[in-house]
Amino acid sequence: MQISNRLAQIKPSLTLAMNAKALELKEQGVMVTSLAIGEPDFPTPRHICEAAKAAIDANFCRYTAVPGIMELRKAVVNYFRNQYDLEADVSNVLVSAGGKHALYNYFITVLNPGDEVIIPAPYWVSYPDMVRLVDAVPVFISATSESHFKINAEQVRAAITPKTKLLILNSPNNPTGAVYTAEELDAIMKVAIDAGIMVIADEMYDQLVFEPAEMCSVSPYVAKYPEQVSILGGVSKSFAMTGWRMGYLVSHPDIIKKATVMQGQTTSSISSITQKAALAALTGPMDCIAEMRKAFHRRRDLALKIIGTWPFAVCPKPDGAFYLFVDVHKCYGPKASNSLELCKYLLEKLHVALTPGIAFGDDNCVRFSYAVSDEVLQESVTRVGEALAELADEASL
Amino acid sequence: MQISNRLAQIKPSLTLAMNAKALELKEQGVMVTSLAIGEPDFPTPRHICEAAKAAIDANFCRYTAVPGIMELRKAVVNYFRNQYDLEADVSNVLVSAGGKHALYNYFITVLNPGDEVIIPAPYWVSYPDMVRLVDAVPVFISATSESHFKINAEQVRAAITPKTKLLILNSPNNPTGAVYTAEELDAIMKVAIDAGIMVIADEMYDQLVFEPAEMCSVSPYVAKYPEQVSILGGVSKSFAMTGWRMGYLVSHPDIIKKATVMQGQTTSSISSITQKAALAALTGPMDCIAEMRKAFHRRRDLALKIIGTWPFAVCPKPDGAFYLFVDVHKCYGPKASNSLELCKYLLEKLHVALTPGIAFGDDNCVRFSYAVSDEVLQESVTRVGEALAELADEASL
Repeated sequence: MQISNRLAQIKPSLTLAMNAKALELKEQGVMVTSLAIGEPDFPTPRHICEAAKAAIDANFCRYTAVPGIMELRKAVVNYFRNQYDLEADVSNVLVSAGGKHALYNYFITVLNPGDEVIIPAPYWVSYPDMVRLVDAVPVFISATSESHFKINAEQVRAAITPKTKLLILNSPNNPTGAVYTAEELDAIMKVAIDAGIMVIADEMYDQLVFEPAEMCSVSPYVAKYPEQVSILGGVSKSFAMTGWRMGYLVSHPDIIKKATVMQGQTTSSISSITQKAALAALTGPMDCIAEMRKAFHRRRDLALKIIGTWPFAVCPKPDGAFYLFVDVHKCYGPKASNSLELCKYLLEKLHVALTPGIAFGDDNCVRFSYAVSDEVLQESVTRVGEALAELADEASL
Repeated sequence: MQISNRLAQIKPSLTLAMNAKALELKEQGVMVTSLAIGEPDFPTPRHICEAAKAAIDANFCRYTAVPGIMELRKAVVNYFRNQYDLEADVSNVLVSAGGKHALYNYFITVLNPGDEVIIPAPYWVSYPDMVRLVDAVPVFISATSESHFKINAEQVRAAITPKTKLLILNSPNNPTGAVYTAEELDAIMKVAIDAGIMVIADEMYDQLVFEPAEMCSVSPYVAKYPEQVSILGGVSKSFAMTGWRMGYLVSHPDIIKKATVMQGQTTSSISSITQKAALAALTGPMDCIAEMRKAFHRRRDLALKIIGTWPFAVCPKPDGAFYLFVDVHKCYGPKASNSLELCKYLLEKLHVALTPGIAFGDDNCVRFSYAVSDEVLQESVTRVGEALAELADEASL
């Protein structure tokens, strides 16, 4: 088959083998409990659904302006004003079909072949391949459980070369749940700004930060360094709207203009129905978010309380998202010598699915998602702990 | 601003100036009649809307499998079996967020930098830029009103070089409405197949062909030469679903697999709600389509009856879509010397918007869309004719 070099170099996701195995078990009638879920388990809030249905009834089913309907772009502007005191304009906003889509549009708009992009690991699974797909070069810097899975300014400085074009930040982080403090962020941003490189901050989980921690957006930097700093956001995680596909890019008007050309030529405007749903989300009551956040907060504590007792594992307390990233390398041994093998083992033995850390660039860890009910979480994390204890025992022999 | 070379080379659409002018007039309170519309003026059929609303009520609002839910991919397979006797499989189908999206996924999956892509002009406006965005090279061959805006096998043969990778076919054609006969298609396909180049057939308007003409799909070639021939389709035009954003690629499983990787990394699954709507479209009653087709057929005849009396214009009778592509170069003169100037002139003078042919690679022509009511069509085409007659008189002085 004639496949382009660009796609030939992109390997199927490392989690595919896991998914295939889980599917196989399900087909055999086995009940698989998934702690590998990357989306809220809550339904989309009712007022958002009703807005979408009203749009359908009003036959709002035609092409819209490519960067999104004006009122939705304004809603994004207002959201940033209300949440982060950012004074932006609709010319700063592009609405895309999900965060991935907004990010890809951004990458292809600013990156040239050979440009280096600094990606802190553990990283969200798609960053490296998205960078490669526009012929740019991912450069990794690593955080470990000791640094609470956060990179620091010095690491960024050391990674910068004359070819460096861009730094990706992601807070709250998927897969670790780490949330950068204002101080940490400031130190990193100073290095990037001084070096003249661009920064894209993936703030997709911005509403999922647990008190007393606070969400620190790069918004002040967008205001101060508009040519260098951009934000990726969306309604998927915060509003339980993953299937609707709406993300956005907040950036310099020149970048938005060109990213809009890109979107206009390759996908066009996003679903008109989804736009009306997202509008309802961003302009409607926020108590539904607070409720979901409360549930995730409770579940984080519930799972951490169990995991914290494991002598063979390390899990720094994350302040956001709905993931725990657990260093389990002490359990590696004859039965499972890396994160993928460990996840396969647990899936076969317990019928519990986790995500191997290698998918996020850290083979010492596995990712637990707590986007499941408290009961399921309690039981499955407990059972995973028992199995890991056995593995750790065997490994230490 | 730091914009990538890739995007820097993509110029804003030539129709943007037109749109800006139309907007300006509207803001002055002027009623603008648009014959520049690229989507059906009908509402999305009710049973499709109801299916979408039911999906929302059932909270079908999560991520789906990247290439689309199984039942929708099966519906595409069945559609091709019923319509074109093609025996395909779900492994041949990728569901994307509209035709553009499916086509871009295809391009980046099969094209390498420097590969030549043969594009027959008049072409759909986005082909050349989409090809350029993956660093491939558009190579144009031209059809004129004399050849009913259809290219022939000999032209394709003459354009093939060792670098040629792909030929794009588009029938029914946007902007010309031209529909290739089986004989014409066979001759062209023979050249492409013999030369070992790939073919992507854009059949987005496949349901909009007017009797006695018949839709000739490249489906038989997909069956016979699966590694070379692919089809682009979607529900946008045939089912009046432009705003929903669902298109699909029918291709070799290896291409689908890699295009799915591309989609998975850059946009992910499309709106879950849209998928249920598209499923209802493809599996539901087809009489709504027949009604729309009947209306378009009637309007084509209505407009052609007027345009056919114009001594200064040439418009071959198109057999599909909802466009008339009219050669008006005899009207070019001091007041308007090309298609863009002509459209601007008509917009200012009559407040009627057309699309300049240069956007589609043919500066002799303008595109009339008849996705408007019979009354509006009758009146505005008549008025355009009067204005063009004046221009032609002045031009011949």
